[in-house]
Amino acid sequence: MKAVIAIDSFKGSLSSMEAGKATADGIKRVFPDAETVIKPVADGGEGTVEALVSGLEGCLAEAEVSDPLGRRIKAVYGILPDNTAVIEMSAASGLPLLSASERDVMHATTYGTGELILDAVKRGCRNFIIGIGGSATNDGGIGCLQALGFGMLDKDGKQVGYGAQGLSQLVRITDENVIPELEYCRFYVACDVRNPLCGENGCSRIFAPQKGASEAIIDPMDVSMRSYAELTAGFNPSASPDTAGAGAAGGLGFALMYYLNAQICQGADLIIKRTGLEEAVKGADIVITGEGCLDDQTAMGKAPIGIAALAKAHGKPVIAFSGAVRHGARLCNEKGIDAFFPVLRSVCTLEEAMDAENARSAIADTAEQVFRTIRMFSKTFI
Amino acid sequence: MKAVIAIDSFKGSLSSMEAGKATADGIKRVFPDAETVIKPVADGGEGTVEALVSGLEGCLAEAEVSDPLGRRIKAVYGILPDNTAVIEMSAASGLPLLSASERDVMHATTYGTGELILDAVKRGCRNFIIGIGGSATNDGGIGCLQALGFGMLDKDGKQVGYGAQGLSQLVRITDENVIPELEYCRFYVACDVRNPLCGENGCSRIFAPQKGASEAIIDPMDVSMRSYAELTAGFNPSASPDTAGAGAAGGLGFALMYYLNAQICQGADLIIKRTGLEEAVKGADIVITGEGCLDDQTAMGKAPIGIAALAKAHGKPVIAFSGAVRHGARLCNEKGIDAFFPVLRSVCTLEEAMDAENARSAIADTAEQVFRTIRMFSKTFI
Repeated sequence: MKAVIAIDSFKGSLSSMEAGKATADGIKRVFPDAETVIKPVADGGEGTVEALVSGLEGCLAEAEVSDPLGRRIKAVYGILPDNTAVIEMSAASGLPLLSASERDVMHATTYGTGELILDAVKRGCRNFIIGIGGSATNDGGIGCLQALGFGMLDKDGKQVGYGAQGLSQLVRITDENVIPELEYCRFYVACDVRNPLCGENGCSRIFAPQKGASEAIIDPMDVSMRSYAELTAGFNPSASPDTAGAGAAGGLGFALMYYLNAQICQGADLIIKRTGLEEAVKGADIVITGEGCLDDQTAMGKAPIGIAALAKAHGKPVIAFSGAVRHGARLCNEKGIDAFFPVLRSVCTLEEAMDAENARSAIADTAEQVFRTIRMFSKTFI
Repeated sequence: MKAVIAIDSFKGSLSSMEAGKATADGIKRVFPDAETVIKPVADGGEGTVEALVSGLEGCLAEAEVSDPLGRRIKAVYGILPDNTAVIEMSAASGLPLLSASERDVMHATTYGTGELILDAVKRGCRNFIIGIGGSATNDGGIGCLQALGFGMLDKDGKQVGYGAQGLSQLVRITDENVIPELEYCRFYVACDVRNPLCGENGCSRIFAPQKGASEAIIDPMDVSMRSYAELTAGFNPSASPDTAGAGAAGGLGFALMYYLNAQICQGADLIIKRTGLEEAVKGADIVITGEGCLDDQTAMGKAPIGIAALAKAHGKPVIAFSGAVRHGARLCNEKGIDAFFPVLRSVCTLEEAMDAENARSAIADTAEQVFRTIRMFSKTFI
């Protein structure tokens, strides 16, 4: 029997690969000769670097970069064996890097994300997977562009400052000092946000408040964004602030798309492609997926549903494991997950449930019993 | 598809029949045309009357009887449609009827259990299933016998008093005043205790301490028990204090066996026979069992294992559901339970898990996902 296992991380407990290995352990108690193929799962958000590096046997790289407020920090990204860099923008420019009182979109910059790209370019990377969730910024991505050599200039011809405040001073854009390697780089952006750059659904209105923006500065920031979009169109005629995802990460999506020719992709789909999951699924007898909690959000299109859809396209049965299931989880049955199983074994605290060792053994024990059931009722695998 | 469901109660949460109905609900979400046969499960202990009455459509009867200390209480027992009485001795003579400070084996009597039998006899019952777990007594069952008309006489020819103290005064036994109907009555005793009446493994030494006996009175009580056994042998030559189960319920096992010709049976086996489970299992495609908690104790021979053994004797697959599984549960796999599933859906308190409505929906949801798995892998049921 061949089982392909692609489980999203049990956040705060097990990584994607750890959850996959525990599942494989449980399966092998029942089918000792089973072939188990474990693929990392991520959605471009937290855990993407860890999942791809551990699942594809890449390595971690560290660079000293600017945090959202310009302080020097060490940030980690991944380099895969084919020299693809995997960067979570939040490693350099993420909201979790700031305390609540430090949140300040007027000054928060994506400069550090640009520095991470630069560091990877120096190490020879020419392909990039960039996850752009969890930003602290609303700078339209100009910080990132500045780090790569773009001139984002004010009326005096000087680089504007950091953050939305800098953006408001932007009057001219130049690319004469852009690093020459950029021409050979290809960017894939993992992004599940579909908001435009400006307007009622734009990043200033929708996302800036949770990054510390007061109501008073939202409209002015939106005006700056629109002016930035117009300047960009002079630079790249195809640029449109209305493109889905342009408003992701405070406009970093827009910058990556129209200055770096990035392709924006649904996070889970991008990772699924990158890990060769589809090829593996084609040869599978069963596909296992899951995540920390299965609920109606899962059914709305998170990674397990993408994996289930892929499996169903090839006619494969799909089982999901999760730390917990909540109301609405049954929708997952309609979206291709044939059956799902929470792995809890007895009443315990959340802390006990999330303890890595407990979670590992709970997943293995659950997989064991499910595969005993499969063995009992399946003619194919006996 | 025909599923036979025989789940022990989820103690403190759902009765055997309630757990069975919840399982059937979950199965029918997947196999709407499934035939589900729900059989009550009990082991002669707490819940036996409830399970048999609700599962076999009997009724409850109430009688005013003596509690272990002679106080008048109302006690309930069951009468099945074929007029078999189902009595839990603990309803009249059980330890839970006393506060901790009231525990007093020197005076605690099984008289009330005899009164329950008497009440059932008056209502026309001639067959009895008697569960003898949880007694407060160590009177050798003489109280029960007195209630039925046996003379348990002291040196002055008077009925001895209640409890172990009464037993110590016993010098002669008569049956001239026994109720005449007793001759036509058949008694089946559900009992998992295999201790003898006397000695190191006898009831005085092993069970009396938890019923309030101090160390000082144990040996004297054991001496009385032995003298009682000798007097009984004069009355019924086949009586032996060494028979397994003679020491159950403070010697009530001995009294029922050698004065009432009771057959002592393993609790779960007796109930399994009485409910016609084996006949049902013969025609089943799958057998479902379970109990509140599956663990190494379950594997040592509790009801689910008896049911699994029966199913395996007829080559049927067995799935178990439980509120929780603990270490050692995997032994259940070796004892005939092909796969088991705890029904917990997410982290919660014990109180939430045991809430009847939650437990019902957790069982149904779990059964649904397990039967979705079965449907997916079974050629037979599609």
